[in-house]
Parts: sequence; structure tokens; C-alpha cells
Amino acid sequence: MEKPSSERMKDPISKNRLEFLFDGIFAIAMTILVLELKVPELEDRHSVGELWRKLSHHAPAFISYLLSFVMLGNFWHHHNRHFRHFRRITLGMLGLSFVQMASAAFFPFCAALMGRYPTNPLSTAIYIGCVMVYMLASMFLWLTAEKADAFTRDLAPAEYRKARRQNLIVCTIITLMFGLYLMNALIH
Amino acid sequence: MEKPSSERMKDPISKNRLEFLFDGIFAIAMTILVLELKVPELEDRHSVGELWRKLSHHAPAFISYLLSFVMLGNFWHHHNRHFRHFRRITLGMLGLSFVQMASAAFFPFCAALMGRYPTNPLSTAIYIGCVMVYMLASMFLWLTAEKADAFTRDLAPAEYRKARRQNLIVCTIITLMFGLYLMNALIH
Amino acid sequence: MEKPSSERMKDPISKNRLEFLFDGIFAIAMTILVLELKVPELEDRHSVGELWRKLSHHAPAFISYLLSFVMLGNFWHHHNRHFRHFRRITLGMLGLSFVQMASAAFFPFCAALMGRYPTNPLSTAIYIGCVMVYMLASMFLWLTAEKADAFTRDLAPAEYRKARRQNLIVCTIITLMFGLYLMNALIH
Amino acid sequence: MEKPSSERMKDPISKNRLEFLFDGIFAIAMTILVLELKVPELEDRHSVGELWRKLSHHAPAFISYLLSFVMLGNFWHHHNRHFRHFRRITLGMLGLSFVQMASAAFFPFCAALMGRYPTNPLSTAIYIGCVMVYMLASMFLWLTAEKADAFTRDLAPAEYRKARRQNLIVCTIITLMFGLYLMNALIH
Repeated sequence: MEKPSSERMKDPISKNRLEFLFDGIFAIAMTILVLELKVPELEDRHSVGELWRKLSHHAPAFISYLLSFVMLGNFWHHHNRHFRHFRRITLGMLGLSFVQMASAAFFPFCAALMGRYPTNPLSTAIYIGCVMVYMLASMFLWLTAEKADAFTRDLAPAEYRKARRQNLIVCTIITLMFGLYLMNALIH
Repeated sequence: MEKPSSERMKDPISKNRLEFLFDGIFAIAMTILVLELKVPELEDRHSVGELWRKLSHHAPAFISYLLSFVMLGNFWHHHNRHFRHFRRITLGMLGLSFVQMASAAFFPFCAALMGRYPTNPLSTAIYIGCVMVYMLASMFLWLTAEKADAFTRDLAPAEYRKARRQNLIVCTIITLMFGLYLMNALIH
Repeated sequence: MEKPSSERMKDPISKNRLEFLFDGIFAIAMTILVLELKVPELEDRHSVGELWRKLSHHAPAFISYLLSFVMLGNFWHHHNRHFRHFRRITLGMLGLSFVQMASAAFFPFCAALMGRYPTNPLSTAIYIGCVMVYMLASMFLWLTAEKADAFTRDLAPAEYRKARRQNLIVCTIITLMFGLYLMNALIH
Repeated sequence: MEKPSSERMKDPISKNRLEFLFDGIFAIAMTILVLELKVPELEDRHSVGELWRKLSHHAPAFISYLLSFVMLGNFWHHHNRHFRHFRRITLGMLGLSFVQMASAAFFPFCAALMGRYPTNPLSTAIYIGCVMVYMLASMFLWLTAEKADAFTRDLAPAEYRKARRQNLIVCTIITLMFGLYLMNALIH
């Protein structure tokens, strides 16, 4: 947790505390997804059939819950793998981290929207748009870290380039998907 | 917090951050259980009798709150005891951890459902189903860790087998209970 | 964060992770207090007078928010001072910690109840009852730790007795207050 | 995380746990901002136009979400930079930290109020008032830390004075803004 005092003074930002804030926001976003799942109102409190009908009526909300949990878990996993390679955090990297956190914190709203109106092209476009913003911030974070020479020495150039290439591919795909869904929503 | 840098590069996932995410999700799930308890509407704001009647009308919600808190606390305690024996986290173990976390994060919904319709067999079946998913993920996590040789050296084979046996017994019981309650709900 | 491996195996529970869970639950309980404060519905969106009237109509909710924040902050501060003296956590101490956490997590409900019905003797009694449960668990935690010989060596007997005496005085006062308010609610 | 045991006993408050509580409250406040964004009710579930109209009708809520996220992120960043210079936490500093945390935890309410009634001068005044309370607590924390000789040795006097001057300027500006908006609300 503690870095030697001399090194600590040079960093503008504590990497540990940023990691902590990031993990905290992910833990909360992943948990408050559940607040969008509402207990249905039953006319007959004892009726299994009615409860089942009303819950399955909200099946998209449950699917959206699961999908979003997996999505956030996946983001967290990649952050975990990449973040260890940073030996310091510059202001630009902090800014991009806040974009990542803002879009992760925005996820419960997107999940609720998609769970409620799964067939509405606009809600899908907004959901994918939020994923896209997160991904683009991830990619730029990686590029900014290189420019700022913020990588640890144990990251081989080949590894770095591989991660950058993967980021680029994923970002291109998600941006194309966003474009498609947005067009779909516009011509609807 | 910090492992020596050479070891850190080999692990795909930081054990400390996973532990952190896990603890964070548990802390939040245990705390947002309370959001399902609603302050009742009173006609006479000063009436002790009316407030008491309306609160005791929601007694199942309070019982479900307490039960779920104890349940999550118990899960956390077992996780705490088992997790220290892992010296690294493989991708498979990460996946099973996410299943655990997803079912823990889903708990507030189950608690709300059971608190609202305690006499409905389906809500009990869903509650037990969620416990079962958590337990099964725990058991498979333990088995996967063995296959991946992810245990610390201080875990004696006898201890390992004991934990596995306990896991198996608990999982069998909870799965049978789930089967019973599900059948009960179906023939209702 | 890391204790030497040999010592770690003897403890049933990681003190660091329990501290973490405790701090997490307090951070969340202190923050979700705010969810009980609702934005009022205005007829004239631009009217300062109407917004002011409606907000001041809910003044008890804001006072209850502040009071509860101070209360939880105070609990946290005392926990912070006492917890450092424990060198290990026994199962009994874990159980009492869960009672503390459950009552802290229950606080937002009590705060909402008191903020809504400040003049109802029952809501005051419930609020004080929740504080009492927390305090009693604190006191018993302290006593249990002594029985289990769980204190660090740097806690002087005089300090221990002073903390025990303070706990006892506070618990007696709060229990008497709870009794009074409960009686007040009953004879209402 | 662990300070040497001798030093630990002298501090009334663990700096690490306070930092943790602070980060936790910020992570939660930044994430529950999203709970104020509500999924609109649609008459035609498939209509892109209707969803767009209803979402853009709530544009101020989204702007308020973003603004408040940036604000809290900014507060966190400054706390991060200043807090590292403290080598111990006195009771006075703890009190001021709680004022900071209470105003940060109060932010989601201010954000919701401003997002709902952006044109109401009172909601703007309350929002700015909350920022002002946070800022003033920050400034007094800095001054109190000096009086209590709580700075680490690596903080040069020139750096200290620069931070104090910046604090003073920001606090003066925000207090004047608060005065203006309050007057504006009063004469409305």
C-alpha cells in the first residue's frame, strides 16, 4: 500500500487510491444493478402462477441484469490486467480514468433502459454507446500511458503492442456496432 | 498489498483486487437490503398504534432482512476462510468468483421477494435457488483451485478434503431443498 | 496488509478483511441515508417560495440525515479506536461484529422513519433501540475480546478498564433512554 | 497499511482507515448519482421518437449527473493530493473530514434537485451551498493541520502556502457565488 516516501511525492496521484476508487465504483455499479429489478404487485399473494407470469413478463430485465453484470465483470478484469503495468498516473490518465468510471457508474441506467424497452432501437443504441465510451477511454488511456512513459519496465514492447492492437480491434467493432444501431434507431 | 514484481507478472489476476471487489460487493449487498424496507404511510402521524400495526404487517420483510444479512455474513465468513488458501487466481476461478458475486448481488432482490410474499412457494424457491447457485459456485471454485494447483503450500491435504466434503454435503442439502421447494411450487 | 504466513493460518478470520467489510458497510450506510431525501414535486417549477416551503416541510428529514451521519461517524470513530487493540478475531467476536454491522446497515431505515414521523414516540423508540443494539454489541465485543485474550500487548490494563467503564456508562444511559421512550410509546 | 505498532498507539485515528472511508463514500456518492435518472414511461414501447423526446425532456438531469460526477472527481483528486501530506489525524481534522464526507454524501440530493429544477434559483443556491461547505471544510482542514503540526516533513513551506492561497481563492469565489445565487433566490 505504501510506496517509499520519496517516490510518493513525485506522483501527482496515488495509484493505489485510484485503483481503490475504481474497484469501489465497479463493486457498487455491479450491485445496484439489482435495484432496477422490482418485486411485482400480486393480486393473489399465494399464487405461484401469477408470480411466475409477472416475473417472466420482466424476463428482459433479468437478462439485462446478467448481461450487464458480465459486461462490468469483464471490464474490471481487463482493467485489472492493464492497470498493473502503470507505474504512475498522470493527469491525463486520471481524466481518462474518470471517463471510464463515469460510464461504468452510468451502466445501471443503461441496463434499466434496455431491460425495460429491449425492442426499442434507441435503448440498445444508448447501451452500446455507453460500452463504446468506456472502451474508447480504455484505449486512449493505454496510448496516453505510452506517451507519458508511465509503463513499468516489465511490460515488453511486444506485449504492449498486442494490447494496443486488441484495444483497437474491439473499439472499431463496438464503434461500428454503435453506428449501425444508431442508424437503425434514426431510420426507425 | 504488493507482491514481488516478478510474481505479479505471472498471475493473470490480482488476488488482492479480487478480494477487494468481493468484499465491496458483499458490503453493498448487505447494506442495500435495507432499501427494501419502506417507511409506511400513516393517516395519523402521531399514532403509535397505527405505526406499530403497519410495521408489524411488514414483519416478514424485517425477518427476511435479518435472515439475508446473516446468510451473506455467513457466506462472507466462509469465503474469508477459504480464499486465503489460494496463492493465485486462474481465469476459471475468476469466472466462478463472478458467479458468486452475481448471486450475492442478486440477494437483495430475493430478500425483497421473500419479504413481500413469504407464503408464496415460488418466492421461497427463488430464494433457495440463489443460495444454491452461490454454494455450487463455491464448491466448483474449490475443485477448480485444486486442478489448477492454486493452493498455498500450508493447506494440508486432510484440510482440503475436509473442506471439499463439507462443501459437498452443504451443496447436496441445498440442492435437495431447492428441488423440494420447486416441486412444491409447481404442484401448487 | 499481509501478516506472516504462519500467523495467518492460525486466525480463523482475517482482521484486515473484517475491518474492510466494516468500513465498507459504514461508508455505504452513511451515503444511502441521502436516498431518503426526496426531491419535492412543484406546481410552479420556477417558484423559489414553493420549493422553500416544501423543503422546509421536510426539515425533520434533513435533521435526521445530519444526526444519523454524525451518529454513524461517531460509531466509526470509536470502532477505529478500539479495533486496533485486537490482535485476532475469534468466532464470537465475528458474530458480535455482524450485530454491529447489521444495526449500522439498518440505520438508514431508522433515519427515514424518524425523519418522516419525528413526533411519533414509536419511531424515536426504534431509532434509539437501533443505537442501543449497536452499543451493546460494542460492549460485549470488548468483553469477549478480553475473555479470548485477543488484545495486543500494548493495551495497558488501565486503558482497557477505562474503555470498559465508558462502554458500560454509555450502554446504561442508552438502555434507560430506550426504556423511557418505549414506555412513552406504550402509554401513548 | 500497517504502521509500526509503537507509532500506531499514539495516533487517535488510523489515517489509512479514514482514507478508506473517504474513498468509499466518494465511490458510492459518484455511483448513486445514477439512481436519480429514471427510465421514462412510454406509451409505445417500440417508438424511438417517444423515448428520445422523453429522455431529452430530462436533459438537465443528465447534465447535472455529468457535472456532479466531474465535481466529485475533482474533489477526490484534490483530497488525494493534499491528504498525503498529513502524517497524523487529530480529532479536529477528523471532524472536518466528516463535514467533507457529509457534504459529498449529500451531493446526490443536490444533483437530483438541480437536475429536476434547473431554472429554480433556490436549487442552484443549494447546490452551490453544498460545494461551498465542502470547500470551506477543505480549507479549514488545511489550516487545522498546520496548527496541529500534522504535516509530513516533505511538504515545503512554499508548497504549503501555495495550497493555502489556492484554497482561499477558491473558497472566496464560491462563497461570493453562493451569496449571489442566494440573493437572487431571495429577491425572486
